[in-house]
Amino acid sequence: MSAPSLRGVLAPVITPFTAALAPDPHRFQRHCAWLLAQGCAGLAVFGTNSEANSLGLDERKDLLEGLVASGVDPARLIPGTGCCALPETVALSAHAAALGCAGVLMLPPFYYKGVSDEGLFRSYSEVIQRVGDARLRIYLYHIPPVANVGIPVPLVERLLKAYPGTIKGVKDSSGDWANTEALLAYAGDGLEVFAGSEVFLLRNMQGGGAGCITAGANVNPAAIDQVYRRWREPGAPALQAGIDRIRTILQAHGPMISALKAVTAHFAQDPAWRTVRPPLVELPEAQERALIHELLEAGFAMPGL
Amino acid sequence: MSAPSLRGVLAPVITPFTAALAPDPHRFQRHCAWLLAQGCAGLAVFGTNSEANSLGLDERKDLLEGLVASGVDPARLIPGTGCCALPETVALSAHAAALGCAGVLMLPPFYYKGVSDEGLFRSYSEVIQRVGDARLRIYLYHIPPVANVGIPVPLVERLLKAYPGTIKGVKDSSGDWANTEALLAYAGDGLEVFAGSEVFLLRNMQGGGAGCITAGANVNPAAIDQVYRRWREPGAPALQAGIDRIRTILQAHGPMISALKAVTAHFAQDPAWRTVRPPLVELPEAQERALIHELLEAGFAMPGL
Repeated sequence: MSAPSLRGVLAPVITPFTAALAPDPHRFQRHCAWLLAQGCAGLAVFGTNSEANSLGLDERKDLLEGLVASGVDPARLIPGTGCCALPETVALSAHAAALGCAGVLMLPPFYYKGVSDEGLFRSYSEVIQRVGDARLRIYLYHIPPVANVGIPVPLVERLLKAYPGTIKGVKDSSGDWANTEALLAYAGDGLEVFAGSEVFLLRNMQGGGAGCITAGANVNPAAIDQVYRRWREPGAPALQAGIDRIRTILQAHGPMISALKAVTAHFAQDPAWRTVRPPLVELPEAQERALIHELLEAGFAMPGL
Repeated sequence: MSAPSLRGVLAPVITPFTAALAPDPHRFQRHCAWLLAQGCAGLAVFGTNSEANSLGLDERKDLLEGLVASGVDPARLIPGTGCCALPETVALSAHAAALGCAGVLMLPPFYYKGVSDEGLFRSYSEVIQRVGDARLRIYLYHIPPVANVGIPVPLVERLLKAYPGTIKGVKDSSGDWANTEALLAYAGDGLEVFAGSEVFLLRNMQGGGAGCITAGANVNPAAIDQVYRRWREPGAPALQAGIDRIRTILQAHGPMISALKAVTAHFAQDPAWRTVRPPLVELPEAQERALIHELLEAGFAMPGL
């Protein structure tokens, strides 16, 4: 993990499944190649939108190894590795570090609720010590709307001070701009702050952030990348408004993961993309039709998919 | 899993750790033997109070195999096997069924929030089909205060009808007596309803329930078992009041798991029992002193520990 920092737009890549609900490595690799060709700086595989927490350890390792074998530079990969169980977070993080990944995106252990900052600090400390690999780079993953267990700003600060160099950044999926602003105060200390949604991208860049890691990048990567590349230009707010419009449509017709898969299935003309693993369910047909209709009306496309 | 039903008091056994935070099979086996000797009908190892979701798959399998090898009849065991990831729930459930366990206590997949009953039904269905073992017996584990994802009564009914014989019971840790009452309506259809706390034990037995699976049984098993055995007697309400008093004290001084371990450490004169795995932390010394003091005042003891 000695590669230069990843900055820009990263996609938490959706995971394709076969009809038997097994991960499909070939569709996965094709989608990853398309995302990188469209301008994604990197891939945060095994994020929330990847249904990563519905994947077993071996499934994650196999997909990651296959992706690297397919030619993706591990320096562009930040796989999610945070599990409930300490030894599993350690195993996945050590595996990613050994493969040469740019870093790992690490959820806090999320089963027990109302845990203390001290307990979460000990958890991250124990993982770092057990992995014991100087190449390890951790991006803290704060997503209280799903994990319920968050990573409060004072804990981020404590971890950054205790493990400088190892704690590399944070993904803020709180949806609370005030929290992202509070994190940006640590950008000068080397904390790379990624917005968890493209709707905060321009503001995040203006505040000294590093980019965004966002569901929307699965289907709208090029336009989001334009906001990242041109954020200093006078036209940036108009570009931001454009990606906001698409995001609003994506969110309006049902759960995000099923919507992303329906959109991908439609534009790739590949129905297999609709498959989700339980406990998720596919978007009902009527909702998918409405979603696609609105996207087409807005001039949305997925060129080259 | 052809043994007769387990009815009575089951302990979600606390899991001892070494100073290096590894599970300690010998302390675990000793505590299990004590619980059975004290009157527990069975052991729901790897429950919430077992820190099961902080254990890796291999750690759970090793502890379970060691417990059976130590002489505990698998017909008295209902290990927790519900994980976020489908293949892991399948692996643990198949392992328990192959060992001859009485059943498995199965959390719903709990990372994604706000999932539909249809999605949860598909999840349980897929697990049952993948395990593909006629010996599999599932106790549904409803604990919304921790997992956030619950198992609503209509879903319990649907699963019971779709998989009669396989869906064997439910543990209701909602803390909501109205929910337990609603579940008891299915007792006649073969659903064994376990209260998730001893405070509901007498009411649950009066309503046709099967017993309780409760944190408190880790430290107060004999008294709780007396309520189970004598619930029809005129003295039952006084016995219930006695175990309620102890439960109230156990809950009054901090998080339950750390409290159970502190009490066990004190009465076993074995400080190693205090160790919890992150993200949990031990009970602060002052809280432990207050807790032990109140328990002693109430005449509490753990004879033979």
